[in-house]
Amino acid sequence: MIKAAVLGATGYTGIELMRLLSGHPGVELSLAGSESYGGKKVSEIHPQFSGRVDLTLEKVSAEEVPRSIDVVFCALPHGKSAEAGAILLKNGFRVIDLSADYRLKQPRLYNDWYDLDHPCPELLGKAVYGLPELNSRAIMGAELIANPGCYPTGIILGLAPLLKHQMIDLKSIIIDAKSGVSGAGRAPRQPFHFPECTENFKAYRVATHQHTPEIEQELGSIAGESLQVTFTPHLVPMVRGILCTMYLKPAGTESEDELYGLYSEFYENSPFVRVLEPPAQPETRFVRGSNYCDLALKTDPRTGCLIVVSAIDNLVKGASGQAVQNMNIMFGYPEDTGLGQVAI
Amino acid sequence: MIKAAVLGATGYTGIELMRLLSGHPGVELSLAGSESYGGKKVSEIHPQFSGRVDLTLEKVSAEEVPRSIDVVFCALPHGKSAEAGAILLKNGFRVIDLSADYRLKQPRLYNDWYDLDHPCPELLGKAVYGLPELNSRAIMGAELIANPGCYPTGIILGLAPLLKHQMIDLKSIIIDAKSGVSGAGRAPRQPFHFPECTENFKAYRVATHQHTPEIEQELGSIAGESLQVTFTPHLVPMVRGILCTMYLKPAGTESEDELYGLYSEFYENSPFVRVLEPPAQPETRFVRGSNYCDLALKTDPRTGCLIVVSAIDNLVKGASGQAVQNMNIMFGYPEDTGLGQVAI
Amino acid sequence: MIKAAVLGATGYTGIELMRLLSGHPGVELSLAGSESYGGKKVSEIHPQFSGRVDLTLEKVSAEEVPRSIDVVFCALPHGKSAEAGAILLKNGFRVIDLSADYRLKQPRLYNDWYDLDHPCPELLGKAVYGLPELNSRAIMGAELIANPGCYPTGIILGLAPLLKHQMIDLKSIIIDAKSGVSGAGRAPRQPFHFPECTENFKAYRVATHQHTPEIEQELGSIAGESLQVTFTPHLVPMVRGILCTMYLKPAGTESEDELYGLYSEFYENSPFVRVLEPPAQPETRFVRGSNYCDLALKTDPRTGCLIVVSAIDNLVKGASGQAVQNMNIMFGYPEDTGLGQVAI
Amino acid sequence: MIKAAVLGATGYTGIELMRLLSGHPGVELSLAGSESYGGKKVSEIHPQFSGRVDLTLEKVSAEEVPRSIDVVFCALPHGKSAEAGAILLKNGFRVIDLSADYRLKQPRLYNDWYDLDHPCPELLGKAVYGLPELNSRAIMGAELIANPGCYPTGIILGLAPLLKHQMIDLKSIIIDAKSGVSGAGRAPRQPFHFPECTENFKAYRVATHQHTPEIEQELGSIAGESLQVTFTPHLVPMVRGILCTMYLKPAGTESEDELYGLYSEFYENSPFVRVLEPPAQPETRFVRGSNYCDLALKTDPRTGCLIVVSAIDNLVKGASGQAVQNMNIMFGYPEDTGLGQVAI
Repeated sequence: MIKAAVLGATGYTGIELMRLLSGHPGVELSLAGSESYGGKKVSEIHPQFSGRVDLTLEKVSAEEVPRSIDVVFCALPHGKSAEAGAILLKNGFRVIDLSADYRLKQPRLYNDWYDLDHPCPELLGKAVYGLPELNSRAIMGAELIANPGCYPTGIILGLAPLLKHQMIDLKSIIIDAKSGVSGAGRAPRQPFHFPECTENFKAYRVATHQHTPEIEQELGSIAGESLQVTFTPHLVPMVRGILCTMYLKPAGTESEDELYGLYSEFYENSPFVRVLEPPAQPETRFVRGSNYCDLALKTDPRTGCLIVVSAIDNLVKGASGQAVQNMNIMFGYPEDTGLGQVAI
Repeated sequence: MIKAAVLGATGYTGIELMRLLSGHPGVELSLAGSESYGGKKVSEIHPQFSGRVDLTLEKVSAEEVPRSIDVVFCALPHGKSAEAGAILLKNGFRVIDLSADYRLKQPRLYNDWYDLDHPCPELLGKAVYGLPELNSRAIMGAELIANPGCYPTGIILGLAPLLKHQMIDLKSIIIDAKSGVSGAGRAPRQPFHFPECTENFKAYRVATHQHTPEIEQELGSIAGESLQVTFTPHLVPMVRGILCTMYLKPAGTESEDELYGLYSEFYENSPFVRVLEPPAQPETRFVRGSNYCDLALKTDPRTGCLIVVSAIDNLVKGASGQAVQNMNIMFGYPEDTGLGQVAI
Repeated sequence: MIKAAVLGATGYTGIELMRLLSGHPGVELSLAGSESYGGKKVSEIHPQFSGRVDLTLEKVSAEEVPRSIDVVFCALPHGKSAEAGAILLKNGFRVIDLSADYRLKQPRLYNDWYDLDHPCPELLGKAVYGLPELNSRAIMGAELIANPGCYPTGIILGLAPLLKHQMIDLKSIIIDAKSGVSGAGRAPRQPFHFPECTENFKAYRVATHQHTPEIEQELGSIAGESLQVTFTPHLVPMVRGILCTMYLKPAGTESEDELYGLYSEFYENSPFVRVLEPPAQPETRFVRGSNYCDLALKTDPRTGCLIVVSAIDNLVKGASGQAVQNMNIMFGYPEDTGLGQVAI
Repeated sequence: MIKAAVLGATGYTGIELMRLLSGHPGVELSLAGSESYGGKKVSEIHPQFSGRVDLTLEKVSAEEVPRSIDVVFCALPHGKSAEAGAILLKNGFRVIDLSADYRLKQPRLYNDWYDLDHPCPELLGKAVYGLPELNSRAIMGAELIANPGCYPTGIILGLAPLLKHQMIDLKSIIIDAKSGVSGAGRAPRQPFHFPECTENFKAYRVATHQHTPEIEQELGSIAGESLQVTFTPHLVPMVRGILCTMYLKPAGTESEDELYGLYSEFYENSPFVRVLEPPAQPETRFVRGSNYCDLALKTDPRTGCLIVVSAIDNLVKGASGQAVQNMNIMFGYPEDTGLGQVAI
């Protein structure tokens, strides 16, 4: 039984971590940190935990995390998370960081896209990009996990087999992504006020979203050469779920069936990736609340375009579920321990 | 004051026609035809019309439409609408057909994509494609209007200026479209059952949607050469609205501002097209219930991709509002008569 | 053609006033005041008005409203609205106040329920409660209209015939009300953040809602004696609409049909009240975007309880539509001018 | 490890049973019966089960259920369920019936409210009403469980302490209930078609809902005398959740705090009932996907009315979760085994 701490426990990824950890047979959630609600019971702020999680939220700094803790989940805002992580590492904790702070290898890109100077660029080399389907070996021994962004998770899982096998024109990648509103976080703001958000659909940060360099870094790493993508996120009037529709120019002439075979083989040891047999298509409801990523492939014989669609729950496989999956790997648990939920 | 009939008055486009015509100062809605509800009052089936529309629904065949009617809106199912239209034309009526039956010039394409033999292919040449922003002269004198499909409306308005000016690579057109659920019609079916449709997002008919040939026919006609597009529709958990995100490879090097100028000029006499000044982006809520099409342009300097986004209300500009706009032009009313609604 | 000003134009009731006034044939919207967005175009803040309302928002105090204006709609926050109204009245304007400030006749009640000292209690006697179905004569000559609250509108219209005819036990009134989220206003707050508001239902301010004394004052005035009600509001995950379910103990033994007859007669000259023939029941969608109030009656033969249900759009009949209806009466227009919308 | 069968596995309660049983450590789901989809894999019809439930649906009659099964959940339509249950009982199975068929003790009431003759009235006396908080002793030894209806569950749990202690006027009970759409089942019908159901609120079956006699039977049994209630259900545009607002006339003068104490004591050994400390109020989101029932009490000092509010997930505590809870008790598992989910 390992002991876990969650810093930033009252945002959406923090809540989701507590939900998942409270049902995990190998973890005791020992500390729930909160800047805003220190001293209140978890169930007072989030009544769904009443009867399940009996912790009191603590306003605790990174320095104050007790040594009895085995793993710390940092679900803090960008910028703050990096600082906390550095201190925790120094104090010998294993850290899973859910912010964007340790994802980009080049501090310049962090500065360009997040408009912040990175507080501890020297640690970027130490961080392991926590996408278990591709990096499980490195995750096993990692001290610091950079837990992937929600969009990058759906996109990288969707494209990795093609890139690994050099099967597409790298100049052709177009990604049209759609996310539920929980991706915007828990702080109330005008665009996410119910009457302005429901019954509405829009694109946002067109060609300027901060996940772009993360996507390019990881796809480029798989492909073995640098690349750039066109990436357009959209906001869907639902709480959870990301669907990514990706348009590619195939380098070869593989059929849908051959591609399906290739993907199935690529992910045969990945319990959370389900490659759908054509012509089935993913729907976000089938992964809602679960750690699955569902994938489908379709070639358009008329135009030659290859269309890959992926679906995840942005708060689970796109954040907290993946963080728990990383923890499982780091501590020697079966990868899917505590992650057996069926979509609700 | 002209007299109008609506055949198929109780489907969503029929209801929307009655809503718009009931507020139109130059039209008297004289006949509301319904196969299923003949003999019942409109307000009995659709209580929102109580106090506003005092008609009784009539089970009336095309042959029985009285000669006092000036214009007939056919909002019948595909296949049936063509037959009704042929009879109405023979009897001297001016017809606005909201089905897909008269949109495709080549009967073979109709057969391929709708899986029906066209009952009166000889009339296809007579039908005018009712997109007023491009065809208003032909609409003026038309006997038979093929009212455009919802997706094609948003797409063609979004791309027409580029195609007219030969500004894009015709092999590069990728269209990622998202529609509200009313686009699927009024008949209850499993995928549109509330618990399976809300809090869900998916692609459907990937690379096989029946609007594809209509889009290609009209875009090709504008471009002056035939072309093919990659078209992926998606279902959004909202009632009304279509947003189309279109990805293109520019032939030249125009800036966003130059493109904005070009679009503004192209649509300067089109009261229902609003070209948004960059970096504003359309949202479906801003056109909901109105006849507007909002457009935005964005170039991605990193990849060279040009991204055009359009938003319409699928039931208004994408169907019944456009039909009324066509009627206005046919009968010499100002184009926007009865269509002054502000989005709600 | 009269000239109208809206103070507080960018909240939900202000937006709705602009939407309705922009389509009103007898009104020119001449001034749109905004504390927060002075200097910006209306269509910049609310893009749906682009092409329809070409005003620039002005940061204008009550003193600065130009004398050319005929009627001022005050859609300001509670407390501020009273002060503005007092100044406007002194300057000779006719004022329609959409806040709660002039609704309660007793300043003590205002203090008790709104936790504010009334800034100008001497004007309370001058204010006319603007429910046209009951007070049209007084509205005609009014200088100051207290536009009713959203809940009180649905409740009073639902109960007035029974109270007028002394047909119920006044000690028995239980009101279970349900409102869409737009009733909470436009400022983003945690409970109305999309992910916490959609797929949720709750009661709020149980037995303590500030509309309670307004309901009691007006019902008591109709009944001819003071009374108290049990009133529980609930929040529905939709934007617009209020449905009130009211439970009463009949004093007599009238049948449903007799009550239906009584209600129909009571409202026979009220174009916006539709009494549904049993067993039809109101639905909020049938009044959405319109100025109607739909009413139904049901007696439970097993328990003797009488159940009255009313439905309105909280932003139209419950606020801005009713304000326009009041304006029509004040300025001699037919009551329903500019209010002919069919629910969308 | 016991073996369970679910008959009617593809409706909403069947799906929910499979979801819960697939995570239950003491049960093997051995048989999933389906009239419509026999021969297909569960995950083919409901893709969320892919990777979790590897059963093939079987078109199996009650006679054909294999003897190796320990418990059969009947999630069949009303009428059919009774017949299947009778056969299963004869064959020696323990049966948990999720339909309404075995809930009413008097066959005449079943006939009156369900418009069906009961096929095996002789078994009604044998059936145990499966509300564990009140009947756990009888459930332990039961052969046949009548699993309670969704509305009755929320209502009975909300009122039981008051009735047990004779604290309210039995003539005064008014129940205003609101349910999510999943309560209407999985078959698509017009009122539950997404565009007609979202952004809408209505009452339905006012004073005529078929759960009325079940509520009265069980409340009367607790109170020790027969009683009648006024019951109005409403439809909320959300998938899951029931909130019941109950209005009562207290017989005594207990304060809110005293009532809170009484309720807390009443439910101190009921792990799934959470009595909220005043002034907290239940919200359906806090029980969504979980087996909890949240309760709150409020007295209106002005009118003397007592208001009790309860919230459950209609598919969990209101159906399948409660069925699993009953199974746990029947087979000697701790009551909450496999039901530890935190609301999502």
